[in-house]
Amino acid sequence: MEKYTLSVLVENSAGVLSQVTRLFSRKGYNIDSLAVGETDDPEISRITIIVLGDDQIMKQLYAQLSKLLPVLSVQILSADNSVERELVLIKVRTNGRTERDEVIQICNIFRASVIDIHLDSLTIALVGDAEKSKAMLNLLGEFGILELVRTGMIALERGASSIYDRNKDKEEYYYGKNVL
Amino acid sequence: MEKYTLSVLVENSAGVLSQVTRLFSRKGYNIDSLAVGETDDPEISRITIIVLGDDQIMKQLYAQLSKLLPVLSVQILSADNSVERELVLIKVRTNGRTERDEVIQICNIFRASVIDIHLDSLTIALVGDAEKSKAMLNLLGEFGILELVRTGMIALERGASSIYDRNKDKEEYYYGKNVL
Repeated sequence: MEKYTLSVLVENSAGVLSQVTRLFSRKGYNIDSLAVGETDDPEISRITIIVLGDDQIMKQLYAQLSKLLPVLSVQILSADNSVERELVLIKVRTNGRTERDEVIQICNIFRASVIDIHLDSLTIALVGDAEKSKAMLNLLGEFGILELVRTGMIALERGASSIYDRNKDKEEYYYGKNVL
Repeated sequence: MEKYTLSVLVENSAGVLSQVTRLFSRKGYNIDSLAVGETDDPEISRITIIVLGDDQIMKQLYAQLSKLLPVLSVQILSADNSVERELVLIKVRTNGRTERDEVIQICNIFRASVIDIHLDSLTIALVGDAEKSKAMLNLLGEFGILELVRTGMIALERGASSIYDRNKDKEEYYYGKNVL
């Protein structure tokens, strides 16, 4: 089992996300992370899902997602052909000014930004791939992580082509279905 | 109707996300954005949901989410008491070196980073609140946005207190339920 990244264009309406997540839970596939937000067209949302699986499972998921009516396009992205990033907000305990300085030093090294500061805590925003987040969390663990929240990974295909170029596949797929 | 941010701690297992999203779709509440990822404890995930509603709806959602067994804690965050950020990956068309330079200038102003570069396109990672993303997308629109993906907003309460301090509320809530 390895991690796969699915990018799914859907109509932005109530119930669509529920339809998509139900498809995974019915099959017992655990979603590692999921992020959904509007695209530049407010009527269309894009869902990025990281799921553990193999080629066989991905083939099934691709077919089943494509069958859902509000789904406009499905893309399976690999580490080779895509760039991926996640955002993590981390609240760290800091006892005194020396510890605060040490945490800020670590932030500078990881190009993370301090977005909230109090006498005994700092909140940090970090953008990176899975390895970068892990490395920074390891270092911050020494100070005490009060809480954290991640967006889950999002990804885009490298180069100038886009998920919209794949609508054709979808049409062919529907065409195929209609013919059968 | 205004935007509310819900932060929900859940057990990290198959089907939990589906249970949560079904609760929204059954009531016809449209989720504006949703992000879910692991916390520092891999057995616990944290879901951030932006939803349109009013105080009455939020009260209901809070109660109904708290009732779900895999839900450990629910927090409603307001703009005043929390910091929120989203990550957006944007692929922009660039015709020639002058346009590329112009896009890179805009990135510098917004402290966004170029994460992929090709002859005719740039992919940019931007972290910000809703207004910052909107302002940058407006500027990049002039060049042509090929595709984009957002994580949806994530948020943490300001100061040193955390969602874990709210487990108590949950216990009181359960206690209340058990007593009734």
